[in-house]
Amino acid sequence: MRSSSVQPIAVLRENDLRRSSPPADENEGFTKVGEWMHDFIRTLYPLCRSITGDGVRRTLELIDERIALDVHEVPSGTRVFDWTVPKEWNIKDAYIKDSSGKRVVDFKRNNLHVVSYSVPVRRWISFAELKEHLFTLPEHPDWIPYRTSYYRESWGFCLSHRQFMALRDDEEYEVCIDSSLEDGHLTYGEHRLAGESDDEVLVSCHICHPSLCNDNLSGIAVAVALAERLRLLKRRYSYRFIFIPGTIGAIAWLAQNVERVHRIKHGLVLTCVGDGGPITYKRSRRGNAEIDRAFAHVLAHAQASSNIVDFTPYGYDERQYCSPGFNLPVGCLMRTPHGRFAEYHTSADDLDFVLPEALADTLTTCLFAFDVIENNRVYVNLNPKCEPQLGRRGLYRAVGGQSERAMEELAILWVLNLADGTHTLLDMAERSGLPFAVLKRAAKLLTEHELLGPLY
Amino acid sequence: MRSSSVQPIAVLRENDLRRSSPPADENEGFTKVGEWMHDFIRTLYPLCRSITGDGVRRTLELIDERIALDVHEVPSGTRVFDWTVPKEWNIKDAYIKDSSGKRVVDFKRNNLHVVSYSVPVRRWISFAELKEHLFTLPEHPDWIPYRTSYYRESWGFCLSHRQFMALRDDEEYEVCIDSSLEDGHLTYGEHRLAGESDDEVLVSCHICHPSLCNDNLSGIAVAVALAERLRLLKRRYSYRFIFIPGTIGAIAWLAQNVERVHRIKHGLVLTCVGDGGPITYKRSRRGNAEIDRAFAHVLAHAQASSNIVDFTPYGYDERQYCSPGFNLPVGCLMRTPHGRFAEYHTSADDLDFVLPEALADTLTTCLFAFDVIENNRVYVNLNPKCEPQLGRRGLYRAVGGQSERAMEELAILWVLNLADGTHTLLDMAERSGLPFAVLKRAAKLLTEHELLGPLY
Amino acid sequence: MRSSSVQPIAVLRENDLRRSSPPADENEGFTKVGEWMHDFIRTLYPLCRSITGDGVRRTLELIDERIALDVHEVPSGTRVFDWTVPKEWNIKDAYIKDSSGKRVVDFKRNNLHVVSYSVPVRRWISFAELKEHLFTLPEHPDWIPYRTSYYRESWGFCLSHRQFMALRDDEEYEVCIDSSLEDGHLTYGEHRLAGESDDEVLVSCHICHPSLCNDNLSGIAVAVALAERLRLLKRRYSYRFIFIPGTIGAIAWLAQNVERVHRIKHGLVLTCVGDGGPITYKRSRRGNAEIDRAFAHVLAHAQASSNIVDFTPYGYDERQYCSPGFNLPVGCLMRTPHGRFAEYHTSADDLDFVLPEALADTLTTCLFAFDVIENNRVYVNLNPKCEPQLGRRGLYRAVGGQSERAMEELAILWVLNLADGTHTLLDMAERSGLPFAVLKRAAKLLTEHELLGPLY
Repeated sequence: MRSSSVQPIAVLRENDLRRSSPPADENEGFTKVGEWMHDFIRTLYPLCRSITGDGVRRTLELIDERIALDVHEVPSGTRVFDWTVPKEWNIKDAYIKDSSGKRVVDFKRNNLHVVSYSVPVRRWISFAELKEHLFTLPEHPDWIPYRTSYYRESWGFCLSHRQFMALRDDEEYEVCIDSSLEDGHLTYGEHRLAGESDDEVLVSCHICHPSLCNDNLSGIAVAVALAERLRLLKRRYSYRFIFIPGTIGAIAWLAQNVERVHRIKHGLVLTCVGDGGPITYKRSRRGNAEIDRAFAHVLAHAQASSNIVDFTPYGYDERQYCSPGFNLPVGCLMRTPHGRFAEYHTSADDLDFVLPEALADTLTTCLFAFDVIENNRVYVNLNPKCEPQLGRRGLYRAVGGQSERAMEELAILWVLNLADGTHTLLDMAERSGLPFAVLKRAAKLLTEHELLGPLY
Repeated sequence: MRSSSVQPIAVLRENDLRRSSPPADENEGFTKVGEWMHDFIRTLYPLCRSITGDGVRRTLELIDERIALDVHEVPSGTRVFDWTVPKEWNIKDAYIKDSSGKRVVDFKRNNLHVVSYSVPVRRWISFAELKEHLFTLPEHPDWIPYRTSYYRESWGFCLSHRQFMALRDDEEYEVCIDSSLEDGHLTYGEHRLAGESDDEVLVSCHICHPSLCNDNLSGIAVAVALAERLRLLKRRYSYRFIFIPGTIGAIAWLAQNVERVHRIKHGLVLTCVGDGGPITYKRSRRGNAEIDRAFAHVLAHAQASSNIVDFTPYGYDERQYCSPGFNLPVGCLMRTPHGRFAEYHTSADDLDFVLPEALADTLTTCLFAFDVIENNRVYVNLNPKCEPQLGRRGLYRAVGGQSERAMEELAILWVLNLADGTHTLLDMAERSGLPFAVLKRAAKLLTEHELLGPLY
Repeated sequence: MRSSSVQPIAVLRENDLRRSSPPADENEGFTKVGEWMHDFIRTLYPLCRSITGDGVRRTLELIDERIALDVHEVPSGTRVFDWTVPKEWNIKDAYIKDSSGKRVVDFKRNNLHVVSYSVPVRRWISFAELKEHLFTLPEHPDWIPYRTSYYRESWGFCLSHRQFMALRDDEEYEVCIDSSLEDGHLTYGEHRLAGESDDEVLVSCHICHPSLCNDNLSGIAVAVALAERLRLLKRRYSYRFIFIPGTIGAIAWLAQNVERVHRIKHGLVLTCVGDGGPITYKRSRRGNAEIDRAFAHVLAHAQASSNIVDFTPYGYDERQYCSPGFNLPVGCLMRTPHGRFAEYHTSADDLDFVLPEALADTLTTCLFAFDVIENNRVYVNLNPKCEPQLGRRGLYRAVGGQSERAMEELAILWVLNLADGTHTLLDMAERSGLPFAVLKRAAKLLTEHELLGPLY
C-alpha cells in the first residue's frame, strides 16, 4: 500500500465549492468514478505504446469504446512545421538470451525492457558490446528504466540493475528485437462535445508511453471521465479532447488545425494526475489567463494544499500550445510534476502508484474549474443606485442588530456592489474572498428577483 | 475606569505632522475639545432616536445649537430608489408589569428596552407568549441588547439576562408599548461650509440609534467639532456635513441629491470613533482614492498603531455612497469596527465606553487628513534643469562636508526633484517617506523663493 | 591590514556570468587590474584638488597619460543654469605656527588641514579667535576632518583632536594660508569611445576632493580602467567618461551639453567604489531604467551580497542628471555609501582604506552590467509555431527520458518561447531566472542556426 495525501472526501463535502459540483462529487459517486478510472488504467496498462504504431491504435479503440473518437492518421514523412512525421514503429517480441537459451530479459514480461523505437536486431553478441546497449538504475536496483530513441536510429534494452548484475562478462548473448520501422502513420484521436458556442475548451493528453501509469494513463483516464461528466451538463463552451502522442502529436495536431485554434478560449494539458501528492497547476504562458485564475481560485478554496507554478517552456505539450506563434491560454494540471517523483519514467510508475481517490480528486478539481469558466459572466446591477431593499424580497435578515451575517448575504451584497458591467463573477470571487459557487448562486437569486442581468 | 490605548498627546507633539495642525491640537486644546465632545455625547445620550421621529428631531435641534443646520423632512411613502420612506415611529412609554403592578422592565429607565419600531401593544400575556418577544444576552447577563424591526411590524422588549431570569414562568404580565407608527416624515440635517470651490468634501454620520454612545453619538460629536474647526480655516473645498438615519436616510439623501453628488470629491463616514482602540480606516470602493491615500499617510505617520482595511459592501452608509451607480470616493473612519467590540449594540456602549482623548485623537486625525486633501496640489519646478543654488537663498547648509542633513533640507530636495507637473504633494510624501506637512512647508518656502509654482 | 568582504575571485569564476566577461576577469588579470587601479590612486593621492584650480588640472593630466582627454576650461562668472562658476582657488602653503615658530598644523603634511576655498590670511591671532576657525573630530582623535566653504568666503583649518588638545589657550599663533581666490576657470575632462551608434553611455566621476581615496579617487581609477577595457571591445554604444568637479562641474557640463544629452541612453555615477563593503547600486529617478535592471540582474547573479536602493535627490551628481528637467537614466554605483562609513570625509579615507580586490570587483561588475546593456536586444523566433526540432540540429539531448536538463537547453527553450518581438534578453533573464550571459549564448547559437533573428 502506498500512502496518500489526497484529502478525504469528507473535507470536500464541507467545502462550499462542492455545492456547485456535478453528480461525480457525491461521496459514493466520487469513490465509484475513482475506481472506474483506475480500472480503465488497468485495461490500458499492458499495451506497448509509442509515438506511432498499433499500441496507440489499440489505446484509441479502447477510449472509443467509452467516448466516441474521430481517429486521424498522418502519413510518415508529412511535414508539420519544422518537424517531419517519423516512420511508424511496431514490435512483436524482444529478448536477451544467454548461452543456455534462457530469456534473461524478456519484452513479453515488461514492455519497458526495449528502448522505444529500437531498430530490428538479431544476433549473438559479446557482453562487452551488449553493455553499450543496456540501461539500468543502480540507485533503484529492482526498477526498469524507460528510454526512447525516436530520432536517432539505434537499439537498446532497459533492465533492472539486479538483472544486469546477474549477467556474466565472459558470456555471449543472443539479442533479438523483432521490431519494424517503416513508412506508416502517426495516429491520434479527438472527441468533441458541442456547446452553445463554437468557442472551445481544449483538453489534451499524451498517449505515447508504454506501461507507465501516472505518466500518460492517468491523464487519459481523467480526460475520458471528464468527457463523460461534461456530456451530462449544459455547456456554454464546446469541448475538444485530444489524445495524441507527446510533442510530435501536438505539433501534428496544431499543424492540421492552425486555422481553427483561434476558437480555443481555454485549455488544459493533463499529465501525472493520479499519484498521491497534492495538485500542481502550471500557468499558461499568458500567466493570468482565465483558466489560470479559475484553477488558482478552485485550488485555494477546495484543496488543503496545492501548488501554482509559473509557465516554463519545458514540460508537456503546453510547450507547443504556448509557443509564441500560438500563445494559447493552455495550462497544465498535474499532481506531482514529472521528474519530482522517483518512480517517474521507471517500471515503478505502475498500477499501485496511481490511486483511485487521487484520480477522482483531480477529476473533481477540473469540474470545479470548468464550472467557473462556464459561469464566469459579467453582470449588471439593475438597481445600481444604493442597495435594493433586500428585506422585502426575503433576501435579508428581517430583524436588525445581529452581528452574525451569513456568507449568502455577503455574496448578495458583493455581487450587487461589483455588478457594474466591468467585473466577472471570478473578479468578484477574487476581490471578496468568497467561493465562486456562492457568488454564482447569489447571481442566480438576484437574477430571479430581477435585480441583476448578465451583460454577456 | 476603562483602559485606553489612545496614544498620549506627547507622542503626537513630537510628530512632525503636528506642525501643520490646527489649534485643536495644542495640548490644552486637545484635552478641551475631547471633553467638549464627551459632554455633547452626554447631552444626546438620553434621547430615544430611531430612523424617524421626534428623537431624531430633538437630536438635530441640539446639533443646530452648535452648528447651523438645514433640516429636511421627507414624507412617509416617498419613493427613494428601490425603497419607500417608512411611517414615522414615536414612543411615549413602555413597560412590562408583573401581577403586583411593578414595572419589571421599564422604557423610562433605558430606551434600549423596547425593540425599535415596535407597534403599540397593551394587554395581559402569559410568560410563554411573552418569551417570544424578549431578547437577552446570556453571555453578558447585565447588559441590555439593542434590537430593531423597521420593516416587519412586530413588537418586543430587550432586557438583561438577569432581569429575564427573575421572571416567573407561571405568571401573567402586562405589556404596554405606548408607541405610534403613522404617516409622518423622515428627518435629516445638513451643515455646509462654503470653500473657494464648489467641489465638496462629504462627512456623513448616522443619528438613528437610541442610547448608544460609540455607535452613532461619537460620530455626531466628532462631525460637529470638525465643522467648528474647519469653519476657522481657509478652505479650498466646500464641506457638507450630513446627519442622517442609517441606510434609509443615506438612500433618501442620495435620491434627493442625485444631480449634485458629482461635486463630492472626497467623503468620509464617521462611526464608532470614540472607543479606546486604535483607528481603523476602511477604504472606499475605488480603493486608491485620494481620501484613502490621505488617511493611509496620516495614520502611518501620526499613529503608533492603526489598521487600513479594504472596502466591503457591508458596514455603514459607505454601502450606499459606494454602490455601483454612485461609486463615490467615500471611506469610513472608525476606531474599533462595529461587531469587533463586545459592547456593540448593547447597553454597555455607554458614556464610559467613549473616551475624551479618543474623540480628540479621531478629530485630530481627520484634520490632518483634510489638511492633506486641502493642500495636495501639483507643483512645477521653475528651475527644472539641475538643482537651484539653495545656499545663496539661505535654504541650505552653508558649510559643506557635514554628514547630517535635516528633514527640511531633504523635503526641499524632494519637492524640487518631483515637481515636474505629474506629482502631487501626496505622491511626493509617499515616495520620499517624509510627512506631508514637511513637504507642504518646503513647497511654501520654494514658492516664496520663486523656485516653484502650483500647476493646479 | 583592513578586513574585506569582497568575494573571492573563486566564487566569481564558478558563476556563469563570468563566461561572458572580458579579459579583465581572468584571475590573474583581476588581481593585476586591481593593483593597477590602486597604484593610480596612490599617484593621485598627494594632489590638493578642489572644485577649481591646478590640483584638478594636474589630476586631468595624469588621467590623460592613460586615456586621452579633452580638457575644458569654463571661465569664472559663467552662468550655468541657476549657478555661477566661482572664482578659481589655488593654494601654495598653509600653517599654524606657535610662538616658537614651530608649525603645529602644516598643509604640506596633509592637504586636508586647510578648509577648501579658504581665503588668504596671514597674521598673529589669539587662541580664542583661532578656535573659531578650527575643526576637529573628538570621537576620532587621530583623524583630520575634511571641510569646504565654496560659496561663503571664510578660512579655517582642520586638525586632529589630539593636535587641537595640544594647543595652549594662553598662546598667540601665527596663521598663514597662502591661497588665491581669483577669476580663472573651472576645469573638467572628457574621454569618448565611439561605438556603432551615437547613442551614449555616460560614466561620471567627481575629481574635486583632495587626499581622499574612496571618495573621489576610487571612482576615477575605476572609470579609467573601464575606459581601457571597453576600448578593446566591440561597442554598440558610444561611451563618454566625464571627470568633473562635483555639483558645479556636473551643472556646468549639463549647461554646455544641453542639446546633446538626449543621446544618453544609460548612465552611471561612480563614487566610493574601493572600500571593502558589498556593492550598493542606487537606481535612477526613473526607477526601472535599463541600467537599473541591468545592475539588479548582475548583482543578484554575481554577488553574494549587495544592496539596491531607490533614488533619492541627495548623494552625488545623479542629483543633477536626474533633476526633473533632464531625468536621465543615470544610476549611482558605490560600495559603502557616503556617510555610512566612519572614515568618510576624514583623513582615514586613505590608501589603506581602498582595496585592490574591491576596485577590481567594482570594475568587473560594471563590465558585466555594460555587457547586458550592449547585448540587450529584442529577438524574433523565426519558427514561432511550435518548437523547432532542436535534436536534428544538435541543440538537444539525443536520447530521451532523462530527467536532467542542462541550463543551456533551458536557455534555448526560453529564448525561443519569449522571442516574440516584445521581449528583450533582459526581460527573458528576469522571467526565466537564468543569467543574462547564458541567454546571450543561446540567442547567438539560435541565430547561427537561423532559428532566431534580432528585431532591433
